[in-house]
Amino acid sequence: MQLSEEDKFFLREAIKLAREGMHSDLGGPFGAVVVRDGKIIGKGSNQVASTNDPTAHAEITAIRDACKNIGAFQLEDCTIYTSCEPCPMCLGAIFWSRPVRVVYAATQMDAETIAGFDDHFIYEQIDIPAEERKIPAVQGLREEGQEVFREWQEKDDKIVY
Amino acid sequence: MQLSEEDKFFLREAIKLAREGMHSDLGGPFGAVVVRDGKIIGKGSNQVASTNDPTAHAEITAIRDACKNIGAFQLEDCTIYTSCEPCPMCLGAIFWSRPVRVVYAATQMDAETIAGFDDHFIYEQIDIPAEERKIPAVQGLREEGQEVFREWQEKDDKIVY
Repeated sequence: MQLSEEDKFFLREAIKLAREGMHSDLGGPFGAVVVRDGKIIGKGSNQVASTNDPTAHAEITAIRDACKNIGAFQLEDCTIYTSCEPCPMCLGAIFWSRPVRVVYAATQMDAETIAGFDDHFIYEQIDIPAEERKIPAVQGLREEGQEVFREWQEKDDKIVY
Repeated sequence: MQLSEEDKFFLREAIKLAREGMHSDLGGPFGAVVVRDGKIIGKGSNQVASTNDPTAHAEITAIRDACKNIGAFQLEDCTIYTSCEPCPMCLGAIFWSRPVRVVYAATQMDAETIAGFDDHFIYEQIDIPAEERKIPAVQGLREEGQEVFREWQEKDDKIVY
């Protein structure tokens, strides 16, 4: 699929943020912008190291910025441009914030092979049974966990997201 | 795998946070705690609706709280207890913050079938080729994206995370 000239413009804005953030020592070499109706409504670069926040990836930072700016937790009619293919955390954040489309430049393999990041490793781990992962996840007290979901189901004034 | 009495204690703390957060209208029915050396060093509940932040899931909130409290972006020697199996976003955040273990109560299917959340749907979407997902991701300008990774590789004073 070919990118439009508008796509290339905003993708280069994301790459610019990646470069600036890295050279300003905010964090790793990643940048992202959220665009609606031809305008940037949120932007971010990786800030993991400078804020001691392992969740402060470029896409998460840009999504949080856009949602704050528009006062909503959904990115309706938005496109997210990111300098690199989203990691599983950021892909999950994208699905929860529900933009219409993502455009990215470098791949998860580029992130691993050129820059040494775990993106591809984490994608592999997701498909392994939970108890066998490098960070294993074990289950218990399932009924006590389910009970809270039933209370949610019955809650009349809940805000569905 | 059986849970220890300590595991059950902290898992019930996570479930308690889920229940309290939901009834306080902070967000959905999810809670999490981060534990090290038998002590809670971070906690959180879902705050998506109350903060207009689609990334404010219980695990993300607890990880950010713990990292802030210890002044680090890695959760060495920690266990994360969560009232529900982590969604892909939170599982990604867990891999980036690198605790040793996760303990959860309800499953991703419980979240979908009892409470109506997209957790299981997002896990399915991850395994679909990027361009064919419900939120499609398209690629372009790969070399311009790679170039920033090369600059990162050559940066002498980078903080690796």
